[in-house]
Amino acid sequence: MNEVIVELEERSYPIFVGNGLLKTIDGLIGEHLAGRSVCIVTDSNLKERFLPDVERSLSRCARAVHRCVFPAGEASKRLSTIEAICREAVRAGLDRNSVFVALGGGVCGDMTGFAASVYMRGTRFIQIPTSLLAMVDSSVGGKTGVDLPEGKNLVGAFFQPEAVVIDTAFLETLPKRELSCGYAELIKTAVILDETLFAFLEADAGALLPHPAPAQTIEAVSRCCTLKAGVVAADEKESSQRAILNYGHTFGHAIEAVTGYTKVEHGEAVAIGMSVAARLAVSLGFISRETAERQDALLRAFALPVTVPEGCSAEAVLQAMGADKKNSNGKLKLILPERIGKAGIHTDVPREMILNAIRERSAQ
Amino acid sequence: MNEVIVELEERSYPIFVGNGLLKTIDGLIGEHLAGRSVCIVTDSNLKERFLPDVERSLSRCARAVHRCVFPAGEASKRLSTIEAICREAVRAGLDRNSVFVALGGGVCGDMTGFAASVYMRGTRFIQIPTSLLAMVDSSVGGKTGVDLPEGKNLVGAFFQPEAVVIDTAFLETLPKRELSCGYAELIKTAVILDETLFAFLEADAGALLPHPAPAQTIEAVSRCCTLKAGVVAADEKESSQRAILNYGHTFGHAIEAVTGYTKVEHGEAVAIGMSVAARLAVSLGFISRETAERQDALLRAFALPVTVPEGCSAEAVLQAMGADKKNSNGKLKLILPERIGKAGIHTDVPREMILNAIRERSAQ
Repeated sequence: MNEVIVELEERSYPIFVGNGLLKTIDGLIGEHLAGRSVCIVTDSNLKERFLPDVERSLSRCARAVHRCVFPAGEASKRLSTIEAICREAVRAGLDRNSVFVALGGGVCGDMTGFAASVYMRGTRFIQIPTSLLAMVDSSVGGKTGVDLPEGKNLVGAFFQPEAVVIDTAFLETLPKRELSCGYAELIKTAVILDETLFAFLEADAGALLPHPAPAQTIEAVSRCCTLKAGVVAADEKESSQRAILNYGHTFGHAIEAVTGYTKVEHGEAVAIGMSVAARLAVSLGFISRETAERQDALLRAFALPVTVPEGCSAEAVLQAMGADKKNSNGKLKLILPERIGKAGIHTDVPREMILNAIRERSAQ
Repeated sequence: MNEVIVELEERSYPIFVGNGLLKTIDGLIGEHLAGRSVCIVTDSNLKERFLPDVERSLSRCARAVHRCVFPAGEASKRLSTIEAICREAVRAGLDRNSVFVALGGGVCGDMTGFAASVYMRGTRFIQIPTSLLAMVDSSVGGKTGVDLPEGKNLVGAFFQPEAVVIDTAFLETLPKRELSCGYAELIKTAVILDETLFAFLEADAGALLPHPAPAQTIEAVSRCCTLKAGVVAADEKESSQRAILNYGHTFGHAIEAVTGYTKVEHGEAVAIGMSVAARLAVSLGFISRETAERQDALLRAFALPVTVPEGCSAEAVLQAMGADKKNSNGKLKLILPERIGKAGIHTDVPREMILNAIRERSAQ
């Protein structure tokens, strides 16, 4: 088992990464639950599969274990679900000292964390991510929240968990497409922060997909969490450098919005977004065409798309980018690679060049 | 004009208290608005009366001024309104550097502060309270939030404003009942913290109600804000002593819940709650019957009720108290006076004594 510490002063917390951790979870997080009421929040898909085991484990240390199940899917990621979770928590008698446990993917983690941050103006929160994307993305950084019809993650809070337990055994149950989506996040992290991780992913793609080998998976996931933790520790609330973690996301969110959040998975949209951003970096002279192609080749090796889907016009994508919350005083903020392992923040890219980069990566 | 500073390190902020401040508001808060987009949140009652003036003033310093109007009343204080405010803000193009301005009473301030705290995971917030209760209560302490059907303020955040502008001229427009409700909060603060303020209110009741005289009002409001600021500075997130500010509120919230939030105003419920709490303190031997009666006499001098309304049984009130978020690990937390000017926190009061105190203050 690896342990990654996210260093945030009094909000520091450990991420435990291992295979089969669920069996001994009470040993890892028991101290956070002793004498407290716990509400496990999970979705309708995971309820049958994993909930009974987790309930059994947590019952060994918590005072009482309740459950709250919401319908699986991004459509649930709304304030109305936060209200439903909080109402359920009131009915279960949870107070300010209680603990919310997120058992699920990114949607579950983002919502449970947000619910924990606002329930009685702030309780506690532990994450047990079940998807690869949630393991490497939502588990580090404390970004929680929900969507609005106008865009994703527009309402939320920065709220750090007490601990994160990553059991890579969950990945054996994931459909290949979902696993690929998680790797988009690992590849993104490698491109902006670490050529070593990038090379590791190039060399070991076969051991990670479609069937994740435990040793390599633990290594890749821990490395990615460590890298992200370093960025978050230096800039918790994204006043500056943390924004580089949004590489691929500004374009990606816009593509998801334009396609109505149905056709393209989040990880796929980020992959396409990275491909567009890399082409923009090429046209601005930051990186060579070969570097952009090396990135796209790795994305493809993990079965990720690198072209903007049909019916998604460059103009519509650019317009949707305008509503992204990462913008500052009306200026579009773009994260662009400067080499494999390094990225920068740019706010003055000409509109026409952005449109051209989107067009260049559009399906013909 | 008085200026009270709420000392919270990097979250410190000023409260400006004066008569007619609205006219020069841009001079007071202009630095917080310069170059930023502003969204004034107000309710349907205040829209006609005050909004145009405030819009005009803020337009002199902000980059753009938008408005968001919600239906007046506690029924609006729900997550669905937070969603409506945030959606409106997205449509108006507000970003993370924008400022939400609450122009209204407690409901408006609590909701606008909460919306500002969650919009894009945190923006900025300025308060212009128009009711006495909002001036002395919601303006200090950063408690923001909304209700659930299960109880009041069960969802929210601790979020401090950048500044608060208290224009006591607003009070001239208030109905007497609403003004009385505000004084419940001043009397509460005096009972738990300051016999001098208590004596001032006893002596000057005639100058404060029904027509508030500017000089005495500014004095009373500033004094109350200063006292509350001292408590909040020592314990921002209510881990210990801040809880004394809930004097009268645990009983009060329960009475509001049992009467369905329609019959009794919040300030009236707090007044009744204080009367019940004082009787409980008498039966526990903390204060004399004379002290309890001195408190009740001051509440009555400000036209506040001191008896539990008909149809509100002691058992129902006690049960509703169990859902209050100020409880800790299932124990009921009660704030009880120890003399005029001092209160303590108690968690081991026998159930039967609580029931008797409620019965003692019940209408026959």
